[in-house]
Amino acid sequence: MRNTVLAAFLFLAPGVLWSDPLPSWAEGETKTQIVDFVDKVTDPENAAYVTPAERIAVFDNDGTLWAEQPVYFQFIFAMDRLAELAKEDPSILSSPTLKAAAQGDLATVLEGGHDALIEVVNATHAGLTVDAFQDAVAEWLDTARHPSTGLPYDQMTYQPMVELLRYLRDEGFKTYIVSGGGLHFMRVFTEEAYGIPPEQVLGTYSETTYDSSGDTPVIAKASGIVFVDDKEGKPINIERTIGRRPILVGGNSDGDFAMMEWTTAGDGARLGILVHHTDAEREWAYDRDSAIGRLVDGLDKGPDMGWVIVDMAQDWSRVYTGAN
Amino acid sequence: MRNTVLAAFLFLAPGVLWSDPLPSWAEGETKTQIVDFVDKVTDPENAAYVTPAERIAVFDNDGTLWAEQPVYFQFIFAMDRLAELAKEDPSILSSPTLKAAAQGDLATVLEGGHDALIEVVNATHAGLTVDAFQDAVAEWLDTARHPSTGLPYDQMTYQPMVELLRYLRDEGFKTYIVSGGGLHFMRVFTEEAYGIPPEQVLGTYSETTYDSSGDTPVIAKASGIVFVDDKEGKPINIERTIGRRPILVGGNSDGDFAMMEWTTAGDGARLGILVHHTDAEREWAYDRDSAIGRLVDGLDKGPDMGWVIVDMAQDWSRVYTGAN
Repeated sequence: MRNTVLAAFLFLAPGVLWSDPLPSWAEGETKTQIVDFVDKVTDPENAAYVTPAERIAVFDNDGTLWAEQPVYFQFIFAMDRLAELAKEDPSILSSPTLKAAAQGDLATVLEGGHDALIEVVNATHAGLTVDAFQDAVAEWLDTARHPSTGLPYDQMTYQPMVELLRYLRDEGFKTYIVSGGGLHFMRVFTEEAYGIPPEQVLGTYSETTYDSSGDTPVIAKASGIVFVDDKEGKPINIERTIGRRPILVGGNSDGDFAMMEWTTAGDGARLGILVHHTDAEREWAYDRDSAIGRLVDGLDKGPDMGWVIVDMAQDWSRVYTGAN
Repeated sequence: MRNTVLAAFLFLAPGVLWSDPLPSWAEGETKTQIVDFVDKVTDPENAAYVTPAERIAVFDNDGTLWAEQPVYFQFIFAMDRLAELAKEDPSILSSPTLKAAAQGDLATVLEGGHDALIEVVNATHAGLTVDAFQDAVAEWLDTARHPSTGLPYDQMTYQPMVELLRYLRDEGFKTYIVSGGGLHFMRVFTEEAYGIPPEQVLGTYSETTYDSSGDTPVIAKASGIVFVDDKEGKPINIERTIGRRPILVGGNSDGDFAMMEWTTAGDGARLGILVHHTDAEREWAYDRDSAIGRLVDGLDKGPDMGWVIVDMAQDWSRVYTGAN
């Protein structure tokens, strides 16, 4: 009996070891570069070997791990929530921007630029406890559907990237999200969608307050953004929160440029992975002229810095986790 | 041969399992409460069982994990560094506070209160890269000695707490520091002294800048404190950075009160450990009237909240890691 088990194990083991950890990545240069990098830094015999403690991998979220069109999903949540809140208290729609947002009139809101976005976020993300806010996000994720794909938003994660995250963790990496998205928003789904626990999610955050005047102390979200986790804010937040320079980074827009530059400028082996949205058929095709996920510097300077540019149309055999 | 190895293993194993994980804690109620709590939350058969992912333990540093008299050690570093910097450029001592600090005249500096402390910290902690700052801290730790014990500062960690941290990690806890001390200062020694990696150190931080104008991008420390990780700031920082409410907390002063209150007010089994400095012989005895590590609320309200109050003189059979 024991010998049978042993034989079965020996027979199965090679299959396990040789199974492809990245089945949704097409065979080719991009996939090879990623796997070669991981092989190199995890091989104690290799000069590029990195100890597990230093195997930090950071990823942007919007446009890198899940889709971001026609606008960041968190903003769709904000508009939906505003419409909900206005049903109970129409006076909340105290400006043309807020009225437009509650009607889902994205074009009008976007005309107002950054200030308009902040106004909508403040009106929908503040004045409640973190727990209550996250309950609202969870309920929205359960019920809302994307306007063009019809998928739940948390099924519009990129299956190749989900596989990459899992592969990296299996190889001893610690995987983090470093996103311009809201910290409390993301933490609702990152563990289930990506296997990334709350303490490994870095994002933009508002002021929060600690109030112990009631029966039990609570932490609540206040108006006003304290830290914007974008552009130079990304390496600053990584240094502040993680305290180590990552060895691998994934991004897709110029908001990720500084974090990718900082990571790949480090000593020793480093890998930068830039997701280029080239797939108008299965996803969207956009870069230099896009209002969302604008990508200029990464395309112009990334190749010289040795970054791997992912051509989504060519390199991914599958796009969304929720559909083939 | 194999049977001999097996027999040796069976013979040794109980010894390993039954060895005392907290040898520097005296037998008694305090130690029993800590061990009982850990046994309870790690036993899947117990109603109080907590999954490993939720076993978050947070600890203050100054006065909880290492000593803090006659003043926070980071401040001694700042005064020493100011004296060093003044040797090269005496014009740096541009105020009476800075002159006093450079002479090690702590009494005069403390008369200036909070503003004076900030002035000394800004003069010594800003205007250099994080790497250069941490090199300076490392060099100071190698050479400086405490005025009354003669020990290197990083040998004045509390051996019972070092054992507690290791014990908790062995039982599946993730251990964090949440301190009013400076983030970059602490990270220089926390891994070696406590086994706590940089990404599990939360502290007070200044503005940092990302500068990619040179050959390689650098992150530097600027003047101005962005976040004070003390009092209400502690639960706010824990929620923001870790995103989970801890189940175990250790502190020693009223600066830790909010973090201990928030932790122990959570549902399910929670443990608050308050270190009371009662040992004038081996360490220091201070609480209600101390300028450093003032402790009033914790003593008045902690027992009603079920906190374990550690009587250092009685509960610790050994104090410093660096001496018996």
